[in-house]
Amino acid sequence: MTRLSPRHPRYASLLLRARLAEASRAGLVVPEGLIAQGRAEAFDYLLGERSTPSARRAARSAASWLLSAHHPVISVNGNVAALGAGRIATLTRILPNLRVEVNLFHRTPERARAVARQLHDFGVAEVLGVSPTVRLPHLPSDRAWVDARGIAQADLCVVPLEDGDRTEALRRLGKRVIAIDLNPLSRTARHAHLTIVDELTRALENLAGELARQKGHPLRRRRAVPNSVYLREALATMRRRLPSSSARD
Amino acid sequence: MTRLSPRHPRYASLLLRARLAEASRAGLVVPEGLIAQGRAEAFDYLLGERSTPSARRAARSAASWLLSAHHPVISVNGNVAALGAGRIATLTRILPNLRVEVNLFHRTPERARAVARQLHDFGVAEVLGVSPTVRLPHLPSDRAWVDARGIAQADLCVVPLEDGDRTEALRRLGKRVIAIDLNPLSRTARHAHLTIVDELTRALENLAGELARQKGHPLRRRRAVPNSVYLREALATMRRRLPSSSARD
Repeated sequence: MTRLSPRHPRYASLLLRARLAEASRAGLVVPEGLIAQGRAEAFDYLLGERSTPSARRAARSAASWLLSAHHPVISVNGNVAALGAGRIATLTRILPNLRVEVNLFHRTPERARAVARQLHDFGVAEVLGVSPTVRLPHLPSDRAWVDARGIAQADLCVVPLEDGDRTEALRRLGKRVIAIDLNPLSRTARHAHLTIVDELTRALENLAGELARQKGHPLRRRRAVPNSVYLREALATMRRRLPSSSARD
Repeated sequence: MTRLSPRHPRYASLLLRARLAEASRAGLVVPEGLIAQGRAEAFDYLLGERSTPSARRAARSAASWLLSAHHPVISVNGNVAALGAGRIATLTRILPNLRVEVNLFHRTPERARAVARQLHDFGVAEVLGVSPTVRLPHLPSDRAWVDARGIAQADLCVVPLEDGDRTEALRRLGKRVIAIDLNPLSRTARHAHLTIVDELTRALENLAGELARQKGHPLRRRRAVPNSVYLREALATMRRRLPSSSARD
C-alpha cells in the first residue's frame, strides 16, 4: 500500500480509504461495501470533506432526539464497524441506553461475528443482532433480520450508511429514523426523518460532542426543521463546489 | 448477491457493479479498485448514466487521433480488464497496430497475469506489460514499470481510469495522452491532452464505433478542441443534474 503523508490535502479521506481496503482484506467489509465507500467519497469531495454548518445543526437535532428516546438503537454494518467502531463505543458511554445492533445487507454468520468482534475490540460492551430472531415485514432477503431486544422494539433508529428499502421498512413500523448518508439524493437520505449529510466518522464525532453537551442541558424545544431543509442545503453546497471549469493546476 | 431486474432504471450501472464485485472476489480487482468504481458511479450518476453529446465528440476526436498514431497503446488495469476486456479486443480488431499493455497501480506478478488472462479470454491476441523491463522516470513504486515494446515507445497512450501521477509522467515524456475518466476534476482528466468524460464501457463502445466509421473515411482536419472544453461541458451537465431539492418520491 502507498504510504500516506499527513500533509496531503486529502489525508483524512485517503486514510479512511486505506482503513476500509484493509478491513476488506480482513473480511469485515464486502466488495459492495467498498464500492459504496467510493460513492460516498465522491459526494464528500463535493461537500468539501468537512462538516457543513447544516450537517452540524442536523447532528445537534439528532443528539436531542437520542436523549429523549426511550429505546434508541444504532445499526452497524461492515463499513460502519470498520470506520467508526471506536466512536460508537464513545456514544454508548455517553448514552448508556443506546443499543448497538449488527445489521448486514450481505449477512453471513462469520461476518456478523466479525462486526461484533470489531465493536467489542473498540469498547462496545454489548452487541445485538449477531443471531437475530425477528424479521421486519415486507422486506425480502437477509436484510429483514433484526434483534428482538434491539431494533424490533426501538422507538428511534440511527442508521448510518443504510440501504433504502430497510430505511423505508423501519419507517413503516412507526420508528423514528436518523440517517447518516453523504448522498442527499439517496432513498435513505430522503426517507429518514432526519438525515445528517456528512462523512460517517465526522458525523459520529459531532453527535458525540452534542450528546455530551446536551446531556445535562437539554435543548429548548423548538419547531422541528423539516429534513428537506438539510438535504437542500447539502445539494446547494455540492452545486457550489462543482466549478464551472477545471483548469490544470 | 441480489438478483438484478433488467427493468430497474439503473440496471446497466448495477450490472457493472456486480461484475466488478465478482472480479474482486476472483482477485482481478483490488479493494482500491472497487472504491474507485464507487467514485466513478457517483460521477456517472450526476452525468445521467449516458454518453453526453460532448463525450461522443471527444470519442470522435480520440478515434481520429488513434487512426493517425504510429504506435498507439491502450493501458489496462484490473478494473478496465474486468469491465472492458471484450471491447478492448474489438478495438484491436478494428485497429491492428493498437498495442494492449497491462498497467497496475498495485502490481503483483499474479495480478498482472490475471489481467492478461482476462484479456486473452476475451480475444486480445497479444498482451504486453506482464513482465515489464523499463521504468518511467520520476515515478516512485511499481507504477513506473512499462513494456519496452509498448508504452515505452508509444506516441499515443489511451489511459482509461488512470492515476494522476502516471498521466503526468506520460505527458512529460512527450506522449499524447487520451484519458477516459468520469471525474472531470481529477488530475488525470485535467492533464490528459484529450479526456473522454464517460463511463468506461460506453466510452470504449463509442470509440470502437468511431474507429470503424472513420477507418475508410478519415475526418477532415479541423482545429483541435481544447480539452478544457470537454471538461467544462461535463461539469455543466453535472451541475444541472444536481437538483435544488430532493423531495421524497
